Amino acid sequence: MLNPSKIKVLGLNDDDNVLVAAARLEKGADLGGGLIARQAIPFGHKVASRAIAPEEPIRKFGQIIGFASQPIEAGDWVHEHNVFLHDFQRDYQIGVDFRPENILPAEEQATFRGYRRENGRVGTRNYIGILTSVNCSASVARFIAEAATRSGVLDAYPNVDGVVSFTHGTGCGMASSGEGYDVLQRTQWGYAGNPNLGAVLLVGLGCEVFQIGRMKSVYGIEERETFRTMTIQDSGGTRRTIEQGLERIREMLPLVNSASREDVPASELMLALQCGGSDGYSGITANPALGAAADILVRNGGTAILSETPEIYGAEHLLTRRARSREVGERLIERIRWWEDYTARNGGEMNNNPSPGNKLGGLTTILEKSLGAAAKGGTTPLNAVYEYAEPVTEKGFVFMDTPGYDPVSATGQVAGGANVLCFTTGRGSAYGCKPTPSIKLATNTAMYERMSEDMDINCGDILDGVTIAQKGREIFEEILAVASGKRTKSEELGYGDNEFVPWQIGAVM
Amino acid sequence: MLNPSKIKVLGLNDDDNVLVAAARLEKGADLGGGLIARQAIPFGHKVASRAIAPEEPIRKFGQIIGFASQPIEAGDWVHEHNVFLHDFQRDYQIGVDFRPENILPAEEQATFRGYRRENGRVGTRNYIGILTSVNCSASVARFIAEAATRSGVLDAYPNVDGVVSFTHGTGCGMASSGEGYDVLQRTQWGYAGNPNLGAVLLVGLGCEVFQIGRMKSVYGIEERETFRTMTIQDSGGTRRTIEQGLERIREMLPLVNSASREDVPASELMLALQCGGSDGYSGITANPALGAAADILVRNGGTAILSETPEIYGAEHLLTRRARSREVGERLIERIRWWEDYTARNGGEMNNNPSPGNKLGGLTTILEKSLGAAAKGGTTPLNAVYEYAEPVTEKGFVFMDTPGYDPVSATGQVAGGANVLCFTTGRGSAYGCKPTPSIKLATNTAMYERMSEDMDINCGDILDGVTIAQKGREIFEEILAVASGKRTKSEELGYGDNEFVPWQIGAVM
Ligand SMILES: [Ca+2]
Ligand SMILES: [Ca+2]
Ligand SMILES: [Ca+2]
Ligand SMILES: [Ca+2]
Ligand SMILES: [Ca+2]
Repeated sequence: MLNPSKIKVLGLNDDDNVLVAAARLEKGADLGGGLIARQAIPFGHKVASRAIAPEEPIRKFGQIIGFASQPIEAGDWVHEHNVFLHDFQRDYQIGVDFRPENILPAEEQATFRGYRRENGRVGTRNYIGILTSVNCSASVARFIAEAATRSGVLDAYPNVDGVVSFTHGTGCGMASSGEGYDVLQRTQWGYAGNPNLGAVLLVGLGCEVFQIGRMKSVYGIEERETFRTMTIQDSGGTRRTIEQGLERIREMLPLVNSASREDVPASELMLALQCGGSDGYSGITANPALGAAADILVRNGGTAILSETPEIYGAEHLLTRRARSREVGERLIERIRWWEDYTARNGGEMNNNPSPGNKLGGLTTILEKSLGAAAKGGTTPLNAVYEYAEPVTEKGFVFMDTPGYDPVSATGQVAGGANVLCFTTGRGSAYGCKPTPSIKLATNTAMYERMSEDMDINCGDILDGVTIAQKGREIFEEILAVASGKRTKSEELGYGDNEFVPWQIGAVM
Repeated sequence: MLNPSKIKVLGLNDDDNVLVAAARLEKGADLGGGLIARQAIPFGHKVASRAIAPEEPIRKFGQIIGFASQPIEAGDWVHEHNVFLHDFQRDYQIGVDFRPENILPAEEQATFRGYRRENGRVGTRNYIGILTSVNCSASVARFIAEAATRSGVLDAYPNVDGVVSFTHGTGCGMASSGEGYDVLQRTQWGYAGNPNLGAVLLVGLGCEVFQIGRMKSVYGIEERETFRTMTIQDSGGTRRTIEQGLERIREMLPLVNSASREDVPASELMLALQCGGSDGYSGITANPALGAAADILVRNGGTAILSETPEIYGAEHLLTRRARSREVGERLIERIRWWEDYTARNGGEMNNNPSPGNKLGGLTTILEKSLGAAAKGGTTPLNAVYEYAEPVTEKGFVFMDTPGYDPVSATGQVAGGANVLCFTTGRGSAYGCKPTPSIKLATNTAMYERMSEDMDINCGDILDGVTIAQKGREIFEEILAVASGKRTKSEELGYGDNEFVPWQIGAVM
């Protein structure tokens, strides 16, 4: 049974010189291995595991979160009173921590049962998707999906996971060129190409700013059995569009159903990393455990996408130091500058410094806070930086620039090609996704038990002594199982029809 | 039968000195009343109905659209070659055209059969609405609405029009104060108060930026049988939230079902004016016909809301001249300035000038183009100007500042309290709305026939000789019928579950 008081401190990485209090520690508490708490230490705060000299780095997550401002003894509480941080805002040290990753040889890589598509990409699900160019065709797309589902026609095609519509609020009342338009176009085309969709029907109204014909010409798209487009205006209204849409779906079904799962290496997995509703446990349980899983995936030749730029803001050095090349590092810095401009022109500002609440929770510096979020990306080299919804083509650990807001961030990652997603949550998110299955990781046992029907894995037992490495292995095994067809909690509940939210940038006109 | 060639020219207002060519006119064509075309005149272009001296105003829609730049004879083509426009950008002439409207005495006002609510407001429909604070509760809201609908429980409550969920893409990843937050809060509370909803359940996740508790405190809202709130995190996950949500709906049903329709004066109607997918016919058929209907409604003591600020941009003088007071006029000008800033900070600019295509279609000046859009607001005084989603409290003709984009614009109007909506369309929009029934007006017969299952009224027959006054009366009668329970085409088709799109202003973070 779970016992939250089983361990007193948590070591996140062998290189660390601090441990995290897994419960409130009284002065004099025996922390094991001869370590004694020299002061009372609140839950989630840091205690020195050995003496640290002034100016010496404080290491947590195996990385530098600050420097000792005075001599620190083993057992001392480590926080603002004895830690400082250089202002190293312009010192990105691109690549200084880069160490090439040893990828397992193909024959040693883990495998899963996936759908290999004609273009070589591999899906973990086999949906038919109905995309919409504009909100004006949202209802028709839903009507088609509902009609297909209700008609019973899917019963004859057991390999098809379902017909799902992707509706949204934008597509018109927007500038017909520029960033906002490009982002929407990439998102649409990215979804159309996601290997978890066996075929796609794209439905428009006809007179919207986001023109289907223009997208087809930009990407050189031809109509084919697995990609059809139509507009309500050309089809002659709602009822006829539904009829014709259903006809297209019926034509697609035999072909989509003919796909079958086969053994494929884990190198074909593209994992989207997400967190939402973070809490004081996120940075010490679920996020590092997910990072450990991401490291295993990368070692197996796969891809792990970290995102949520606002949450690493101010600590982008943590990523640039791991960059594979100067170009990759500079691309990240360029996105950071873009965000400063984006928020400024919208009357806000970027600020990811620890809040008073964060500090009460034990987060001392912006590096430490961002590491809690970035921990889910693991420790391997940063191989590429993508803009929102760009096709992810590099293997290994990569970054995609997205907002932190869950549905918008995940929509960009799925457009990038993610075929599986892991989502850590402390407060308890109910997020689910289609066509990409989403594995939800609880940061703490209390929430896991309260929302057990929504959570796939409890990472709260790390506070009971399960190691981060063990939990990372468990998550990796779950990723393989889910990629092979095991249904996640959010899939069982039916999530994923309302979470397609393309990033809307620019004025609504 | 319809005969597009029945009439050759169209007079839009008795004060006009131009007519509109209802078909291409050859040089020498007899236009009736002794008028002969002195040149060939393209369809949709203007022909002088009498001589116009240099500097004399050109009047169309009863309003000035420009000035003669040379002597114009009766039968002359009137376009860029003989029309100029002063730059009167700063000359708003607030109120110079204000003439108080004679409202019919109560006993002479038209009536309809509406649901009078406890607070005195009147609904035209009787839905239970499920609002969502954030995208993270969108799926749960849909699950509750679907479960209620599928359970058959509604069968016992015939006066309830249904349970409808209002999902959207925002509510988190946004600034927790300022314009974007305020707009969303007004929209939510406006929907909650729309008289077409008999009761409201508001569902959140729990940790989102848009906090339900804060909204309750801002508006002094108490939980009551017709307004309930819940969060997924408090309820303990998806399944329990659905169960508890269904329970709340079951509790609401008897009370909501106890409402019944009664005779109420048309002064209780609040009409949202919309257009989408405009074409060359919009400004000469459906829009002025809807304007005539709006004038009748105003004379009956009702309210008509014009919106879509970008479409009147540059011709806001047309509205300020009709303003009831300096304050009302200045409020409109203030919104125009806001839009200039909004688009500029998003890297765009406001520009509503006629495009080359518009000019080919016969639109000579920005005033003429804007009049085509503003024509649906009729001719009565401008009594008030509202920001997006503000509660509309004044009677008569009012303006609400919204984008032109249909679902976003209509969402603001419904939040303002609109209980009926008229939507003109030339290209053929399939728009439909809940909880506010939407009457779709086709601008041309060809599209009406092609999309007859989506269109409620054909205004294309104005080109066959039906007068704008006659068509305005027909629309007004349809408004009364729909307000009394007649179902619109979009209601028959099942629209309205995907068109709630609050205006998202600001950065997504
Ligand atoms: Ca939606
Ligand atoms: Ca996060
Ligand atoms: Ca997030
Ligand atoms: Ca319009
Ligand atoms: Ca519009």
